[in-house]
Amino acid sequence: MPVVGMAGGGQLARMTQQAAIGLGVSLRVLAGGPRDSAARAVPDTRVGDDRSLDDLVAFAKGCDVVTFDHEHVPGPHIEELQNAGVPCRPGAAALAHAQDKLVMRERLAGLGVPCPAYSHLPPSAPLAFLEAFAREHGWPLVLKATRGGYDGKGVWIVENLDREAYELVRELLSGGVDLMVEQHVPFERELAALVARSPYGQGAAYPIVETVQEGGICTEVISPAPGLPKDLAAEAQSLALRVADELDVVGLLAVELFQTAGGLLVNELAMRPHNSGHWTIEGARTSQFEQHLRAVLDLPLGSTEPTARYTVMANVLGGDDPEVYPRYIHVMAHDPAVKVHMYGKESRPGRKIGHVTALGDDLAEVRERARHAAAYLRWGTQMKEKEENR
Amino acid sequence: MPVVGMAGGGQLARMTQQAAIGLGVSLRVLAGGPRDSAARAVPDTRVGDDRSLDDLVAFAKGCDVVTFDHEHVPGPHIEELQNAGVPCRPGAAALAHAQDKLVMRERLAGLGVPCPAYSHLPPSAPLAFLEAFAREHGWPLVLKATRGGYDGKGVWIVENLDREAYELVRELLSGGVDLMVEQHVPFERELAALVARSPYGQGAAYPIVETVQEGGICTEVISPAPGLPKDLAAEAQSLALRVADELDVVGLLAVELFQTAGGLLVNELAMRPHNSGHWTIEGARTSQFEQHLRAVLDLPLGSTEPTARYTVMANVLGGDDPEVYPRYIHVMAHDPAVKVHMYGKESRPGRKIGHVTALGDDLAEVRERARHAAAYLRWGTQMKEKEENR
Repeated sequence: MPVVGMAGGGQLARMTQQAAIGLGVSLRVLAGGPRDSAARAVPDTRVGDDRSLDDLVAFAKGCDVVTFDHEHVPGPHIEELQNAGVPCRPGAAALAHAQDKLVMRERLAGLGVPCPAYSHLPPSAPLAFLEAFAREHGWPLVLKATRGGYDGKGVWIVENLDREAYELVRELLSGGVDLMVEQHVPFERELAALVARSPYGQGAAYPIVETVQEGGICTEVISPAPGLPKDLAAEAQSLALRVADELDVVGLLAVELFQTAGGLLVNELAMRPHNSGHWTIEGARTSQFEQHLRAVLDLPLGSTEPTARYTVMANVLGGDDPEVYPRYIHVMAHDPAVKVHMYGKESRPGRKIGHVTALGDDLAEVRERARHAAAYLRWGTQMKEKEENR
Repeated sequence: MPVVGMAGGGQLARMTQQAAIGLGVSLRVLAGGPRDSAARAVPDTRVGDDRSLDDLVAFAKGCDVVTFDHEHVPGPHIEELQNAGVPCRPGAAALAHAQDKLVMRERLAGLGVPCPAYSHLPPSAPLAFLEAFAREHGWPLVLKATRGGYDGKGVWIVENLDREAYELVRELLSGGVDLMVEQHVPFERELAALVARSPYGQGAAYPIVETVQEGGICTEVISPAPGLPKDLAAEAQSLALRVADELDVVGLLAVELFQTAGGLLVNELAMRPHNSGHWTIEGARTSQFEQHLRAVLDLPLGSTEPTARYTVMANVLGGDDPEVYPRYIHVMAHDPAVKVHMYGKESRPGRKIGHVTALGDDLAEVRERARHAAAYLRWGTQMKEKEENR
């Protein structure tokens, strides 16, 4: 049986392990520490730094293929591995588009894929540049670090050029952060397209989902996106499959999209299992984690058929009370059909520590079930007190 | 998060790990060796002998609850653990009924649960006893070792008292094997009832399934049992829930049943995840593995609702060619919706090394899909040659 190496020890590697156990494939992870989310679930855990070439080379020895649980492995290191004959999927050239937002925008623009207006922010006279950009595209503006952001980190909404904005830009630029600016798109909602592509070139698309964000963090995913016209759903799937093909992505590609009055615009790309695809564990015939393994192993891709009319995933964020387990009793007794996924991570306020999934025919009911479970796991004590004080 | 210890490193512990990862619960297994099926999937694997009290005591230290992947842990050892304050679920008293077929028969007879006619085989003058038993219940007879059997091992059909039967009985008795004899039931088919029970006393019953056996090994499980009258299905579920309650089972209880013209008869009991419940991974809202964890942790039990009209599980047995992985390509390309589960076990002819699951509305089609995948994974090379020679 082949050995799949995954650099990164987060919850994506952890959930990939569940799929690897099913397929009988050996998963090896490179984790930062033995208490990382995936390290607790994967016997073949190597502790090391996934930004160190030496650690990556040692890790890759004996792996049939290397893949990634995040975007932070330096591209040149991946190239070195590839040059040494290690199949890296996705490869460095593809992954660059998920690692650098400016590289991604320029490539997508070249392909004619609709994106928000954007520009690199020149470090000299940046404020004058922002002012000129705003004159053309309006306020507010979106300032982004080209590299290293996630979950809303590395993204700032700039309402106007006040003192605060001035300080922010100055601080970022003097800290060596490479910046770009984008038009703030007046979107109706956010969608995500998840596709897989194998080295052989086979593609598979999941139903288009709606993602609900709060403070830059995804809190809820609804599959399929309710009320999305069929042609728009097909357009989003085609767009993602085309991007995967043009960028030579192998594995999963998640395309975050804005739905606007004028059509779809691409927001971000990720080339790995994605939060917007956690619903597939129960809600699709093949989970995104199994699909990613099948893709990077060049196995035929699995069916993306939904298993229920609606599936809703809600993220569980850490609350004030880190003891989540005692709250299982209420959540499971209240709703025996809700599925709880916890990541083995220490709870900190606002941190993604798990998710819950509910399925059914009545969307409002399914959303309420998922929300209740996620909210109770986050806020159990307080909610209980609130209920008792009624 | 609690730590659940499971004694035994087989595929049941391995698949329990998939559920434990989801729940965020820590699974610890006691495996015979580091290459055991579960040892390959569980970081917290302790290598030891689950029939040694010392090893069990060391293993149990730090576990919130201890449970079992098989029936072979000696009852007195479990009692010792319990006396030392370790919650063992199921406990020794309950588990005795899954460890000793005679204890089970006597208890079920006392409860008025319908069973085949049976008797202990007295070691003195056993042949005369068999002859007398056969006069009352007819030939053939079923000879069983009271303890230690599995997958058809420890069970012999005796057609008549010829030289072969004489040798068999003599050899077993002189080897110290305790024997019992049972009526050979002319059943229509075999069914299985799977229920869970928590310490709190909550019970949950899965749909009744049909199990198809070949040579004493289960090859196929169909959920729900096709054409089973509703009252008989309800009777089987009630019977299993009642047995779980009377025997004070905690965790899963699988009741293997004969469906006969005269009604249902109990064949065997198991108190752990069971081969007849593997279909629940995809086919029920809560898998039997998650359900077992919820039960032994005294969490509210999960929904047993089926996720499809029909689910068929087919066991993958080892064939002549131990290299199974290259055959994934055909199986997955042929049927992108079939789910493959391999156990990380070395392939030996006839050994259960995995299973496949198919779901759908058309039973004949679903059975054919599961059978094809299982047969191809077992016999790939030969089947391919056969197809090419057509």
